[in-house]
Amino acid sequence: MNAVSANLLKNLGTFLSARTLQMSTVNISPAAAEAGNYCITFDDVEKAHSVIKPYVHQTPLMTCSFIDKLCGRNVFMKTENLQKTGSFKIRGAANAIASLVRKNIKPDCIVTHSSGNFGLAVAKTAKHFNIPAYIVMPSNAPECKKNTVKSYGGVVVECSPTEKARMQKVKSVWVEKGGCFIHASQTAEVISGHATIGFEMLKQNPDLDAIVVPVGSGAMISGITIAAKHIKPSIKIYAAEPEKANDCYLSKCNSHITPVDHPVVTIADGVKVTIGENAWPIIRDLVDDVITVSEEQIIEATKLVWERAKLVIEPTSGVGIAAIVSEKFSKAKGMHDDVKNIGVVLCGGNADVGTVAKILTGV
Amino acid sequence: MNAVSANLLKNLGTFLSARTLQMSTVNISPAAAEAGNYCITFDDVEKAHSVIKPYVHQTPLMTCSFIDKLCGRNVFMKTENLQKTGSFKIRGAANAIASLVRKNIKPDCIVTHSSGNFGLAVAKTAKHFNIPAYIVMPSNAPECKKNTVKSYGGVVVECSPTEKARMQKVKSVWVEKGGCFIHASQTAEVISGHATIGFEMLKQNPDLDAIVVPVGSGAMISGITIAAKHIKPSIKIYAAEPEKANDCYLSKCNSHITPVDHPVVTIADGVKVTIGENAWPIIRDLVDDVITVSEEQIIEATKLVWERAKLVIEPTSGVGIAAIVSEKFSKAKGMHDDVKNIGVVLCGGNADVGTVAKILTGV
Repeated sequence: MNAVSANLLKNLGTFLSARTLQMSTVNISPAAAEAGNYCITFDDVEKAHSVIKPYVHQTPLMTCSFIDKLCGRNVFMKTENLQKTGSFKIRGAANAIASLVRKNIKPDCIVTHSSGNFGLAVAKTAKHFNIPAYIVMPSNAPECKKNTVKSYGGVVVECSPTEKARMQKVKSVWVEKGGCFIHASQTAEVISGHATIGFEMLKQNPDLDAIVVPVGSGAMISGITIAAKHIKPSIKIYAAEPEKANDCYLSKCNSHITPVDHPVVTIADGVKVTIGENAWPIIRDLVDDVITVSEEQIIEATKLVWERAKLVIEPTSGVGIAAIVSEKFSKAKGMHDDVKNIGVVLCGGNADVGTVAKILTGV
Repeated sequence: MNAVSANLLKNLGTFLSARTLQMSTVNISPAAAEAGNYCITFDDVEKAHSVIKPYVHQTPLMTCSFIDKLCGRNVFMKTENLQKTGSFKIRGAANAIASLVRKNIKPDCIVTHSSGNFGLAVAKTAKHFNIPAYIVMPSNAPECKKNTVKSYGGVVVECSPTEKARMQKVKSVWVEKGGCFIHASQTAEVISGHATIGFEMLKQNPDLDAIVVPVGSGAMISGITIAAKHIKPSIKIYAAEPEKANDCYLSKCNSHITPVDHPVVTIADGVKVTIGENAWPIIRDLVDDVITVSEEQIIEATKLVWERAKLVIEPTSGVGIAAIVSEKFSKAKGMHDDVKNIGVVLCGGNADVGTVAKILTGV
């Protein structure tokens, strides 16, 4: 998100705050976060874990001895590529929507914006509750993604492929249709939904010494951090990020959100966005370090998981694996010989097999 | 296996029978099987399950709602593509080798023949016990497969790519090196090792009404049949086979082993071989039906699993999925409306990503 879109989001937040229904799922309060009160607490995570249980898989924590050898540590992959709708995003979407329904609030519709996995997740969950879902998608989004949203029962609303056009379209759809807007990454219930990944990982393996998470908007890593550091304060949390989309790295260096100053081009399309204002204070204070990786490393890591772990992942999932097998990993802040058991989140598997395979094999 | 190679195998069996050590892992006794005494019993399966436990994964039984919809039933995929060495073959190899070691028999070496997954499995297990492994492989086997065998510590012995040359090479290596010969599919301990797949599936889901298994040599389906029909006599067992390698189908029609009368060309390279003499009586008597599928169906099914279940499988695994989503499935012998919960074995995932992706995308 660049400065323009951040302002738009703030404006939209103000707009939302006039509507009490939407306020219950939108919690953009950087001031509170700055004061040390993060947008979610561990209680929110526990609640989310119970709320989303009927709508998500508890995905397996898988191992691969070949990757262990490359990493020189024991690696436990949280296979969110096997999650319903093919990515972790269903956790946040399900928590946001089901939390409303549990409060006996059934909105006329759900409105969100997404060019990918969050749109699928909202469409599927909304359908479960028989609530219409309007997904604002850029007109240049791949047809296959639009079709998948439709197959889950979502209504695709196209907009020009700019951040400004997207937020304007969200606003106009929302004004027209009413209902509830869920921000794809900064709504508090979305973050606490995603946080259940960390909660589950430590239930599945309490011996984890560190968790590595690809970072885009920061919703996933900030949630996981709140969950994991509450359960096990000694655990290290590392963000993994493409060198070409290194806003999280820059932000940690500068101690404030620092978008990249050039157009972002990376194969890891799920982490192109800049970290958001609700996620940032948690990342700033509690994430131990950021490990950046090259496009070549992402491609190699994705291929490694396909060929050795036999899992179809999208390249964004390869970012975490690339980080743990890189030389940088041993030099990350807080790393030492006792950090032996590494959890890493394979965040999604929604790859077009043909397209990705061509990239992986250099065809 | 054609008539020539069947004779060669019998001759080799005679040769083996002169050496008591090898007899303990080679049990080619078609006469006994014809009399109703199959080469393994359920006791062998239970024993195998306990013997191989330290050397194999209990692979998950996974579901995919999209595949359920296509099949019109509940589908439970036994993910042997996630097994150690990337296929179910480690079960048979581990049982054969570990059973010897448990009897305090540590052979000087293991000799086997394989152009693929069984070679990897023997190499890995033998290395575990610090026993040299000689894998006779055709000279035209892909370099990557030879390299993987070597990476597991196996010694690759090349032979001309004919059945006759292969068996002669096995014999000469065995005469030179001594040790123990394990037949890749007809050794009884190999079959009871593979049988643990059926044992595990019914432990993981006792409600399975049918199990579908790709058939090549028949070692896997015959083992699974002995295990599953003992635990649950009502369960249906279906073989899935490429139309272009339909020897199992022909054999069931003719009531005797009937190799195909043309060179076998199928993308499902793991099931090119003809069913063996130890597996046959079990298939003849206890397998409910054989479902054959076209090359196009195998390709579509493989793609389906990659894209929807997010699992990398080799096309041979696609054969079982192709069978259950085909129109033929509803018409198979013994099928009725109460057959709702279908287990299907994804036998392996050792695909060259680039090659398979090209086939899947028609490039």
